[in-house]
Amino acid sequence: MREILVIGIGPGHPDQITVQAVDALNRAQVLFVVDKGAAKSGLLEVRDEILRRHVRNHDGYRVVEIADPPRDRGAYAYADAVADWHAARADRFAEAIGTELDDDGVGAFLVWGDPALYDSTLRVIDHILAGDRVTFDFSVIAGVTSVHALTAAHRIPLNGIGEPVHITPARRIADGLPDGVDSVVVMLDPHFTAAQLDEPDLEVFWGAYVSTRDEVLISGRLRDVAPQIARTRAELRSRHGWIMDSYLLRRPGR
Amino acid sequence: MREILVIGIGPGHPDQITVQAVDALNRAQVLFVVDKGAAKSGLLEVRDEILRRHVRNHDGYRVVEIADPPRDRGAYAYADAVADWHAARADRFAEAIGTELDDDGVGAFLVWGDPALYDSTLRVIDHILAGDRVTFDFSVIAGVTSVHALTAAHRIPLNGIGEPVHITPARRIADGLPDGVDSVVVMLDPHFTAAQLDEPDLEVFWGAYVSTRDEVLISGRLRDVAPQIARTRAELRSRHGWIMDSYLLRRPGR
Repeated sequence: MREILVIGIGPGHPDQITVQAVDALNRAQVLFVVDKGAAKSGLLEVRDEILRRHVRNHDGYRVVEIADPPRDRGAYAYADAVADWHAARADRFAEAIGTELDDDGVGAFLVWGDPALYDSTLRVIDHILAGDRVTFDFSVIAGVTSVHALTAAHRIPLNGIGEPVHITPARRIADGLPDGVDSVVVMLDPHFTAAQLDEPDLEVFWGAYVSTRDEVLISGRLRDVAPQIARTRAELRSRHGWIMDSYLLRRPGR
Repeated sequence: MREILVIGIGPGHPDQITVQAVDALNRAQVLFVVDKGAAKSGLLEVRDEILRRHVRNHDGYRVVEIADPPRDRGAYAYADAVADWHAARADRFAEAIGTELDDDGVGAFLVWGDPALYDSTLRVIDHILAGDRVTFDFSVIAGVTSVHALTAAHRIPLNGIGEPVHITPARRIADGLPDGVDSVVVMLDPHFTAAQLDEPDLEVFWGAYVSTRDEVLISGRLRDVAPQIARTRAELRSRHGWIMDSYLLRRPGR
């Protein structure tokens, strides 16, 4: 039986990976990586460094790149478009597993952060296993998320005392933060959506390329630092060719 | 200048700790640990095993136990009671740091999971530094949380596609799940509060002692498995003398 390990490799620092993940990397004969274009070359360098530092036998594995299918980002029905894209990914993953991995081989998918948070690999695997093209057992190795890299970099708690935490894609806060939650982590934000919120007293803890050598942190009252974050964000994106950022919004008076 | 490292040591498996955290453990001369009574002896064994496996020089550090101040759990004003307790903890932490650590020494606080999530150490440190009894620099080393240990054990995503995630103490869901959120992680629940929710179609992914050798997982429709979870929970608590559990609730039809 083939075995697939879905490994969380952490948010960006080559040592922000667990010992369990390192052991999993060392068990795999084939590392499947899905590259999202040369623009994110900074991340590819980190991934290479993870392998260089933590894999003990560099003749013991092969890296197989799976090209990402095109994604219809203009689609009106977001969830449908994503489901189509997962199906297309499943075709390519199944093909790669079937052709690149021996019948009793161990393969690994390397996932930034943790495989459970805003990553499609587990859904794609469910999609493959629901069909009958290729069978395998699989397990998931948890990782440190970018959320906790952000709070660690700012040296702050995520939650208020005894209070909930909300983690959300930016498009869900365009009309305001949810009621009853004082700590909101915003991810997948192409435009620093918080700048348009009508809550100037919010505190913001923002970070770009957190845990990498390019890390930039800004924090303060939203009304005071929003212009600086927007400007910094634009400069960084222009300089690096891509940006990876997230932020925590806190209602004051907690 | 004294240096304090606040180290997330992960959710319970001795290898579910990052390489960064292992390096931090190895830099520390004094490991401060806060023990919550012998009842949690299972966790103390895991912590000992972490040190045994990952600290290279066992003559290079000392473990200093800080006894926890009593906490008024019956208080009506929950946040006030917790703030009082943080102040009492700050006294004990400051005392321990001042007497046990050299002026240029490196000390570490070991925190289960990640220091940002439902842990008081960072608040206590802020409390100490706001006074003038002892000064130090500090940094935070992120860890894998019990939330991601739970999703990894169940091999499931945490969020719906493009949807938010809510993490909450149980007392905040006693009257129902928040609107507009289909994925809710419930923590710090003394009674499996979900059993009283009037949403029988919810899916639940429950885990106790996740990532330890005593791990128990149950999942299914809430209406089908709630009695089994409640019964199992009571049996486990009786057998081990304590319980550590959490669960993800998902609204169906995502």
